[in-house]
Amino acid sequence: MGVNHMPIEIKASPLPILAITSGDPAGIGPEIILKALKNPAVFEQCRPVVIGDQRILQRAADEIGLAPVSFDVVIEPSAGPSQPGQITLIDLGNALPESCPVGQLSAASGKAAVEYVLRACDLAVQNQVDAIVTAPLNKEAINLAGFHYAGHTEILTEYTHAKNVSMLLVGANMRVVHVSTHVSLEEAIRRVTQKRVEEVILLAYAACRALGIAAPRIAVAGLNPHAGENGLFGSQESQEIMPAVLAARARGLQVSDPQPPDTVFLRTVKGEFDIVVAMYHDQGHIPMKLLGFDEGVNVSIGLPIIRTSVDHGTAFDIAGKGLASANSLLAAIRVACQMAAAKKAGL
Amino acid sequence: MGVNHMPIEIKASPLPILAITSGDPAGIGPEIILKALKNPAVFEQCRPVVIGDQRILQRAADEIGLAPVSFDVVIEPSAGPSQPGQITLIDLGNALPESCPVGQLSAASGKAAVEYVLRACDLAVQNQVDAIVTAPLNKEAINLAGFHYAGHTEILTEYTHAKNVSMLLVGANMRVVHVSTHVSLEEAIRRVTQKRVEEVILLAYAACRALGIAAPRIAVAGLNPHAGENGLFGSQESQEIMPAVLAARARGLQVSDPQPPDTVFLRTVKGEFDIVVAMYHDQGHIPMKLLGFDEGVNVSIGLPIIRTSVDHGTAFDIAGKGLASANSLLAAIRVACQMAAAKKAGL
Repeated sequence: MGVNHMPIEIKASPLPILAITSGDPAGIGPEIILKALKNPAVFEQCRPVVIGDQRILQRAADEIGLAPVSFDVVIEPSAGPSQPGQITLIDLGNALPESCPVGQLSAASGKAAVEYVLRACDLAVQNQVDAIVTAPLNKEAINLAGFHYAGHTEILTEYTHAKNVSMLLVGANMRVVHVSTHVSLEEAIRRVTQKRVEEVILLAYAACRALGIAAPRIAVAGLNPHAGENGLFGSQESQEIMPAVLAARARGLQVSDPQPPDTVFLRTVKGEFDIVVAMYHDQGHIPMKLLGFDEGVNVSIGLPIIRTSVDHGTAFDIAGKGLASANSLLAAIRVACQMAAAKKAGL
Repeated sequence: MGVNHMPIEIKASPLPILAITSGDPAGIGPEIILKALKNPAVFEQCRPVVIGDQRILQRAADEIGLAPVSFDVVIEPSAGPSQPGQITLIDLGNALPESCPVGQLSAASGKAAVEYVLRACDLAVQNQVDAIVTAPLNKEAINLAGFHYAGHTEILTEYTHAKNVSMLLVGANMRVVHVSTHVSLEEAIRRVTQKRVEEVILLAYAACRALGIAAPRIAVAGLNPHAGENGLFGSQESQEIMPAVLAARARGLQVSDPQPPDTVFLRTVKGEFDIVVAMYHDQGHIPMKLLGFDEGVNVSIGLPIIRTSVDHGTAFDIAGKGLASANSLLAAIRVACQMAAAKKAGL
């Protein structure tokens, strides 16, 4: 864990330190962070350190009528008092409120948001924090600021030089990884190859282990209705997916045959499996969004650092109005703590 | 409404008469019918007439330990007393219990199940009943009996010579119709044509009207993730779906642009739309099965008669054990009553 991690051990509590990036200053990130950090349960699980701009956080507090917020501005993440009602803050002082109007797209906001993420990465690779939890940034805003990333995943991948990063969706009783995500459905079908499916099954296993599940039960969804109904409605189940399943079983993994997509998610929620390997974006996202309501969490798998995220965007339309729910952020904090604990346990 | 419908009007109550077919004698059909007809709410909505075999129903009652069941065997559907605790039965006497062992596939059971459906059709076209509600039959059993149908829909379509029959899924807060169902995902993509999408939008409108919704708000799902994200992930939204939407709007229908598939169902459940036009089987079935749990209903749209159905199969594995839930059947009865009322109201 390195020298910089020592301060935790001096304290009685072995709680993980989490860097929480405040996201686009014009979005709901600052507001949901303030709301989440009023929750005493957060401080029982971790020591949160916000990375942002004090002026922006204060503006959000004023807008939503929060009682006076007390900030403890620190340089070292471990230096904060970590008490409910106090925000331990690494203040980058990089977001002038006038340049980052609430609910509006701006290059200034995009630039600030990227800088929060990069600082969090610095702290994570130096082991000054155990995990990163990210509030939403805005893709258009960061592009306006000259950062040509599609989102957090690309920033983190470039920063860490990771080779094979994927997105894991985590809900209350379900986890999902995808064979493909942001491609057309036609292209998604082409990507259902034995090689890729096997890769994602292994990823599903690694993801569950990183979440502290010692012996993951992996469900593999079919591509076609009824998982092809024995070849009547498509052949990918027999030609690509099943060979991948057999290869994964040969490695000792607990993996199902290709399952009918319309029931495998409900069966997983009911406890039959720990994770579903989904064949395309909407196969996994439709059930996750329905079940997750506002409590879904995204996790980057394959990075050398732990990173979880809310599953919503900057929601400019409701920013500054006090309407945003902190539930997804609270869930992202919970999952980051689980992953930090699993890592310490050597899973 | 025809002469045969007169008996209802003689009574004080204008409740619709429902023919409830008891399905495969070896499955859970008889059991869930007995359970549903203990519910007084059913008799506040309709006058149910079961079509089956008294010996099979009695066997189911004995197996699950129901208190003595009283049968009123009738010839005319309108003749029954229609009271909770009494089963008004048209007894076809066609299923010898020894020939229809519980939980087992048999030609005798398959034959009996088809005969219940055909009798219900007779009664519906003669206006002796207002709607048909079907308990599950078993495709393999009816094939063993020499009836080469895939299921109820094919029997009803052939019987009524209907031209364009589709399946509507009805949940508590959501209705879904599909551009295609039992075909491979590759073939499903090919079927997303302007012509077919427009046809299904019109069907969605007709389905909502048949359910009593005077001014349906129709959501059209995209085919690709994020509905193609402005052409980045596929072109069907702009080339096929949007032209169909515009054509439907030109007819005066309230129809959305193609919506991101992973959020349109939650938005519908929350009340933004009445029905979703889904582009393929699992796009609609995944959310329905998740939300419906055991309360989903299937409705045949495009028939000259009203027909609703449970959304589950014969469940041979739990037949005779008292474990089957009657919730889907209760929901199917409710929807049939709604449709009968909408028909009377001229919708």
